[in-house]
Amino acid sequence: MKGAILSLEPGAGVVDLTHAVPAQDIVAGAYLLWTSVEVFPPGTIHVAVVDPGVGSPRLAVALRARRGDVFVGPDNGLLIPAVERLGGVELAVELNRAEFWRPTASSTFHGRDIFGPAAAHLARGVALDELGSPVSDLVQLAFAKPEPNRGEVIHVDTYGNLVTNLPAADLPPKFRVRLGWFSIPFVGFYAAVRPGHLLALVGSSGLLEISARDANAAKLTTAGRGTPVLLEPI
Amino acid sequence: MKGAILSLEPGAGVVDLTHAVPAQDIVAGAYLLWTSVEVFPPGTIHVAVVDPGVGSPRLAVALRARRGDVFVGPDNGLLIPAVERLGGVELAVELNRAEFWRPTASSTFHGRDIFGPAAAHLARGVALDELGSPVSDLVQLAFAKPEPNRGEVIHVDTYGNLVTNLPAADLPPKFRVRLGWFSIPFVGFYAAVRPGHLLALVGSSGLLEISARDANAAKLTTAGRGTPVLLEPI
Amino acid sequence: MKGAILSLEPGAGVVDLTHAVPAQDIVAGAYLLWTSVEVFPPGTIHVAVVDPGVGSPRLAVALRARRGDVFVGPDNGLLIPAVERLGGVELAVELNRAEFWRPTASSTFHGRDIFGPAAAHLARGVALDELGSPVSDLVQLAFAKPEPNRGEVIHVDTYGNLVTNLPAADLPPKFRVRLGWFSIPFVGFYAAVRPGHLLALVGSSGLLEISARDANAAKLTTAGRGTPVLLEPI
Repeated sequence: MKGAILSLEPGAGVVDLTHAVPAQDIVAGAYLLWTSVEVFPPGTIHVAVVDPGVGSPRLAVALRARRGDVFVGPDNGLLIPAVERLGGVELAVELNRAEFWRPTASSTFHGRDIFGPAAAHLARGVALDELGSPVSDLVQLAFAKPEPNRGEVIHVDTYGNLVTNLPAADLPPKFRVRLGWFSIPFVGFYAAVRPGHLLALVGSSGLLEISARDANAAKLTTAGRGTPVLLEPI
Repeated sequence: MKGAILSLEPGAGVVDLTHAVPAQDIVAGAYLLWTSVEVFPPGTIHVAVVDPGVGSPRLAVALRARRGDVFVGPDNGLLIPAVERLGGVELAVELNRAEFWRPTASSTFHGRDIFGPAAAHLARGVALDELGSPVSDLVQLAFAKPEPNRGEVIHVDTYGNLVTNLPAADLPPKFRVRLGWFSIPFVGFYAAVRPGHLLALVGSSGLLEISARDANAAKLTTAGRGTPVLLEPI
Repeated sequence: MKGAILSLEPGAGVVDLTHAVPAQDIVAGAYLLWTSVEVFPPGTIHVAVVDPGVGSPRLAVALRARRGDVFVGPDNGLLIPAVERLGGVELAVELNRAEFWRPTASSTFHGRDIFGPAAAHLARGVALDELGSPVSDLVQLAFAKPEPNRGEVIHVDTYGNLVTNLPAADLPPKFRVRLGWFSIPFVGFYAAVRPGHLLALVGSSGLLEISARDANAAKLTTAGRGTPVLLEPI
């Protein structure tokens, strides 16, 4: 992908976000992209490829968000939460103009053959609507909405921290967190509990997270994506 | 290595290709380099280090391919398939002029001390033949050539896909793939079979690959590098 | 972190050193930073984040070494060996001026919210002493000093090589290495022993290392950080 981009636009600044998305896990990819886009400069071109449907009739798309960023990737929901975070879709096109693809596009590596070249053409100044035809009806993906005092784990990070869908703004003034059999204190930082103990805090994405000091909360609790999380006011 | 390059040529654009080559696996490194070089711009300087013989009498070399790219690394075969893909060796030199090394070269990290500096000097405009003496007799490495309808696995990727040495152009019009006890359909894309099922398709390198939808073909079949692959016309 | 840096200074050259430090292992991070800084150009801005105490009262700091490089990160010892290697601390400041932070700094991701922005402001030309107040009393960290012919393992790398704290300059003219029950020859390079056999050599950092040819010395010996290493002159 980097070669394909730099062949078309040698001056492009290419930054790796992560190569640690579990294979074919669209939801984890969508979460990690969602967490990261806001801090990049407005107008950034984001390429994301978690693409189990490559070669099937799923569309290749590029979406401009209202903030001005463009997202390039498969139409499988991967890009949607990030686009929503930057104001929602302003323009969506299907990347169906082969003159902007790599000449010998394969059916299994659209990152190199379609997405990378599209991003490079955008970086060179080609307008988004030149790359293909407008599309609507994009595959949608959204993290589960929490109910009052009731949410769920939406992501497990590489440290075993359990990220929930409960935003900081909606937390009660004083509470403990119930996760299965565990009742967990809400504290300000890791070092507020003893090593090996569970804690809950507001993580870097502004969401409630359950962690274990110097340990792995996912292993300790056997919780994973979808596990219910209850807030018990005290 | 990046520090060594940027110390000599601060304006160099350094791109990571992969850090996932299994330790000391020259063949996997040679395959991954071979798959990637064509899409980079002609004239790119490629540095590759999979180097179990570092410190022994194996040579440090830089090879210019006919396309104009230069490859820098150990003389252990690692660079050869990629150079062949770009037209073969046009000029090969041994990196034996110590004035182009890091002043205190160690015997165990030639990436930092010899290869990185050589790449940076080339990027600054030093001619290849200034870096050392011409060499011939390079260590050769080539992937096994297939026979008609009979090839073998030459690479297992991080998803467990089994890449064979059978190029798309040599496939019969209709066939199934025999891999040990498995008879596998040749299809256009992953989603053409049910989850967990094996399939064969032409992968991103233009070679026949055996995959499993939403699963790991290498684990499912216990096949690995060298496993025979037969095409059975139907 | 990269987004935070590039938002403030789009022209910054950002280089990844490693993402393979074991979670929360300050000592391994300090070792890897120590091995790498010398080869980067003087004046480089180094950002390092291994930060189990994030959110606790530990300070966020930036330290200028006598060579001119600036190190940005947590005050937990992580930066100290590298700074010492470049001449020691010339100026240390606590990053306590919130106008140089990301506007909505969280308590769990100072890399994105404090360290990255500080590095970007430095790259843009902001003077170090504008970023905060001078501090002394930094948390100290140093690798154990060896005694004559007696040291210890201070790092296990990803290949299983055991790096000791014994510098090349202090080695006797002829010796074997004693590690637990093993007596290991000192040789010039890996290929000097048979595959699977242990060897000792001077590694890329100028320290005595114990390796196994085509194998993993840490697994073979079950040694780890802190294991005593004796030199037996012969």
